[in-house]
Parts: sequence; C-alpha cells; structure tokens
Amino acid sequence: MEKPYVVGIDIGGQTAKIGLVDARGNVLVQTAIKSNDTEDYKAFIKTLCDAVIRLIGKEYSLSEIRGIGVGAPNANYYKGTIEGAVNLTWGGANQVIPFSEYMSKTIGLPVKLTNDANAAALGEMTYGVARGMKDFIMITLGTGVGSGIIVNGNLLYGHDSNAGELGHVTMVRQNGRLCGCGKAGCLEAYCSATGVARTAREMLEATDRKSVLRNLPPETITSKDVFEAAVEGDALAKDIFEFTGNMLGAALADFVVFSSPEAIVLFGGLTRSGDLLMKPVVESLNKNVMPRWKNKIKVLFSQLKESDAAILGASALAWELGSEG
Amino acid sequence: MEKPYVVGIDIGGQTAKIGLVDARGNVLVQTAIKSNDTEDYKAFIKTLCDAVIRLIGKEYSLSEIRGIGVGAPNANYYKGTIEGAVNLTWGGANQVIPFSEYMSKTIGLPVKLTNDANAAALGEMTYGVARGMKDFIMITLGTGVGSGIIVNGNLLYGHDSNAGELGHVTMVRQNGRLCGCGKAGCLEAYCSATGVARTAREMLEATDRKSVLRNLPPETITSKDVFEAAVEGDALAKDIFEFTGNMLGAALADFVVFSSPEAIVLFGGLTRSGDLLMKPVVESLNKNVMPRWKNKIKVLFSQLKESDAAILGASALAWELGSEG
Repeated sequence: MEKPYVVGIDIGGQTAKIGLVDARGNVLVQTAIKSNDTEDYKAFIKTLCDAVIRLIGKEYSLSEIRGIGVGAPNANYYKGTIEGAVNLTWGGANQVIPFSEYMSKTIGLPVKLTNDANAAALGEMTYGVARGMKDFIMITLGTGVGSGIIVNGNLLYGHDSNAGELGHVTMVRQNGRLCGCGKAGCLEAYCSATGVARTAREMLEATDRKSVLRNLPPETITSKDVFEAAVEGDALAKDIFEFTGNMLGAALADFVVFSSPEAIVLFGGLTRSGDLLMKPVVESLNKNVMPRWKNKIKVLFSQLKESDAAILGASALAWELGSEG
Repeated sequence: MEKPYVVGIDIGGQTAKIGLVDARGNVLVQTAIKSNDTEDYKAFIKTLCDAVIRLIGKEYSLSEIRGIGVGAPNANYYKGTIEGAVNLTWGGANQVIPFSEYMSKTIGLPVKLTNDANAAALGEMTYGVARGMKDFIMITLGTGVGSGIIVNGNLLYGHDSNAGELGHVTMVRQNGRLCGCGKAGCLEAYCSATGVARTAREMLEATDRKSVLRNLPPETITSKDVFEAAVEGDALAKDIFEFTGNMLGAALADFVVFSSPEAIVLFGGLTRSGDLLMKPVVESLNKNVMPRWKNKIKVLFSQLKESDAAILGASALAWELGSEG
C-alpha cells in the first residue's frame, strides 16, 4: 500500500517548522523548533529528528511516512547538501553540510532537500493554484525576491541546482541600488518588501510631496506602512506600489520569453497588497512583453494559507520519493 | 536493427535545404529546393517530398531512415504545425499549416518540426560543442537573435511551444530601438547582424570620429563591413563590437540566473568576428552576473560547419523518433 503521509520541514534562520501532511495538503499536526541554538549541524539534525518523532507521536507511525521534504537556504537539490549558508548558525561560508544523508541515516526515512522558493513552487503545483499546470513560474516576494520555475512538470534546477534566481536579473543598469548579492540594480533591490521600503524613503527624500508616511521616522518605514497608507488613499504610497508593480511586470515580461509559462504565481508578504500590486504588474507585463504573449499569461496570487505554505512546499518534495521504503 | 539515418530539412524564406545524416553527424548527401515559388503549402510539401526521394536515390532507401526533422519559422513543436508564418509564400498571418501530418502522410515517414534556433541547439547537443551537456543555452546571432534552451537534456518548449525567444528581452528600457516584433529595446535590435549595422550608423551620425566606415553610404553598411574595419584597426569599428559585446554579455548574465546553464553557445554570422565579439561578451557576462556564477559559465562558439549546421540541427530532431516505423 502507498504510504499516506509526508513530512515537510521549512528551515529558516531562527526556526524550523515541521508538519505532517496528507496527499490533499492538509497539515495534520505541526510544530517548530529553534534553528539557531547550536553551531553543530549534527546536533541540530538530531534535535530535528527528535522533534519529528515527537510530532508523529502515538497517533501516526514512521512506517506510514513516505519521506521527508526539506526547504532550506543554500540547498543543493542534486547533492542533498546545504552549502555556504552564512545565515544559519550551524552553516558557514565554506561549509558543505551533507544534510539529507545525515538526517536520513539518523531518522531512517528518505530525505530530499531544496531551497525555499523551489519548495513554494512545488507546493503550489501539488496543492495550490497551479494544480495541473506543467509550466509556470513562482515568484516569492518577501524580504528578498525568490523564484521557482516549473518546466514540463518539473522544477528547473540547471547545471548546479541553483537555477531560478530571478530576484537577481538586472532591472536598472545605470546607478542601480546595491543588492545583498553583491551586484547592483537587481529586481530584489526594488520589488522585495525591503525594496518597497527603500523606494518609500527615496521618494520622500526626493520630493516635498505630502504623505502620511512623513509621520514616521524614515528608517522605520516598512512595506506594511506603505500598504496601509495607500489603502487610506495616500497618493505617494499609491505611487510606490505603481513603481514597484511596473518594475515587477517588466521583469515578468522578460521571464515569459524565456520559458513561456501558462501562469506566473506571486507569493509572500507583498501579495497582501492585493490589487495595489496586481494591477500595475499585469499592465506592465502586457505593455513590456513580446506581442505574441500579450494578455495570454495568467498572473495569480498563491492560494496556499501563508502559515502552512512553507511546510506544504517542503512536503511536496517528499511525494517525489518512491512509495516503497 | 536500428535505422541508421535521419533526414534534416531547414526551411527558410527562399530555399529549403535537405540532407541525409548519419549518427555521427556526417551529411552524406544534400540538396536544396526553392521554398517561395508557390502559395499552396500542399504543393510545396509534395515538391519537398519528391526532392527527399530523389536525394535518397538508389544508394539509400526510405526503409533505412528513422524519420525527418524539420526546422522552420513559426513552428509549433507540440502540434507539428507552422502558424502565422508571414515570411513564407505558402504561410500567412492567420494560417495554421498541419505540416508534420501532411508531410508524414505524403512520404510515409514520421516528421518532427521545431523552429530553427531550437534545431540549432539540438544539433549542437547531438553533434557539436555541447555534446554531453544537459543544460546549456544556444544563442543564434544572425539577421535576428534567436535561442534554444536545453534543460536537463531536453529543449525547453514551455506551455505553447514558443519558449526561448531570448532575442526579445528588453535591454534598453528608455528610448530603445524599435524591434521587428513590435516592441522596443529588444536584445535583437542591438546584437543581431542588422543591430550591429544600426549601431554603426548611429555612432557615425552621433560623432565626427574618423572611421573607414565613412567611405561607405551609411544605409549600405553591414556587420561584415564593421568587422573588416575593426580587423584593419579602425577604432570606431572596434567600439561597435565593444558596445555589442557588452550588451550581449549583460543579457547572458540575466539568462544565467534563470536556467543556470553549464555553457552558452554562440552561433551564426556574427560569431565570425571571433575575439572582437567574444572578449567583451565574456567580460560583460562576468561583470553583470550574480557573483555566485562569476567565471563559472563557459561561453563557446558553435563547432558545427556553418554550411551544414541548419541541416544537422533539424536532423537531430529526428533522432528523438522511435527507431521502429
């Protein structure tokens, strides 16, 4: 009989979320542990395995679990390793951690690993708005801009497993903003939550226009503040979303000529802005795309519940594993 | 026994080239027919089938041929159709020609169809410099800029078979040159052979700099003239290649974050410029790419003999066909 459950684990800089998931995408039980209280990856993985076993508890059993999918920063899908993860206390710039191998040996289940944006794309294809689609692009708009590209029903990993870093295409070629990746003008420097806050500070400084955002110390402004101001009708705040959406739509137009997707799915904190973001994105996409694709690409918001999405995405990876274990 | 040969056909606006090819990429015999002397696609396909049969002659036999691969403009790989091919006398803006089906029925062999840049990528993977590679991007630099993207050993077709139109990413967002596709600022408007000629005319007009190119009527200048001037040491002509290579390298940097290829293969007329083009391309790629990929992507010129390349590329498609027929 097919094993009916998978485990999804989303590893972030502070916490690791763990959930037990069924084939319909119900998170049956979930928990979380700290991910930053050790510098020893083996100690972390042992704590993680203990937490998985506690979570399964008496109600479920290890023998019902097909495998474990893990979303983590700097994950190498091909090798099952986490490489150069400077934001993890047990990672390091030159460290290659044999994560899948060690975790699998410790808990006795197969383990697959990918980065969080790829996991989000798999989650959307398995349980979300992209069910049944074979070609789509997932864009995650959070602190950074990430992406997962599905081609013919499979994630695009490329030669080294690092494909799909669409936050780092160059959108501004002259005097672009410095990006965390080390180069300038990246999409991520403009269309992430932090990019929106930077745009707000720049626009406030460049003009004398009235705005409720002037009531806040500039360095504390967040994308949420900009959203709330725009909802209240603040013209400058609306312009910030217009600017952000225009740039994102222009970037999407370039992505479309690459992989000709059926849809582009947007996910993450910024999508809470709804039409404020969606409207300029769609307009700009259709203005900038090669005419052949004008008005042909669906732009959708993710339908996964945000609190479950990371676990669901990671868990989707585990369905790729064979059902015999 | 496996059938040892395939037929490759490259259909252009004036001629169709036909070749019989073995598994090592030897073009055993080849011929060409006119492709623009009828407005009836059925008549053209019949003439084409007759030419294939004459080419095979007495030395070879139809029963030794696995199938026919065809490279053609506006080809839909999924459907085997040629759609809206305004540059073919027997095509038309709203016409959908069931090319594969009709040709296969007429000649009694399986027929596969793709566009020319995709065929070039398959040819390079099957017989050329990309043998053994599973992830690379082919860029064709001719009258236009085309591309074929290989992902995990397969061509990327996308949702509608039109993926890989990399000549139409937007490189210049303000006052970009008008492109044949209908939008402005496309890579193709700058880095094709015609783009190089346009750059020459613009640079000659914008300055009073000395150049042997001033001896030519501006409207007659070709990329070959620019190449010959640069080889003679003409500073302006060298700057034209520098400008072209810079822009192409910047575009390649964005392509790399999409599919993380092992290599980028350049093909077509402009590549005859050799280092004049290659040097600025590689410098610009490594300057503009996300640091993770700096100095890691091979940039290669095609190794296929230019006169055979179109036939070889199309023929490579036919090896995908099963050997039983």
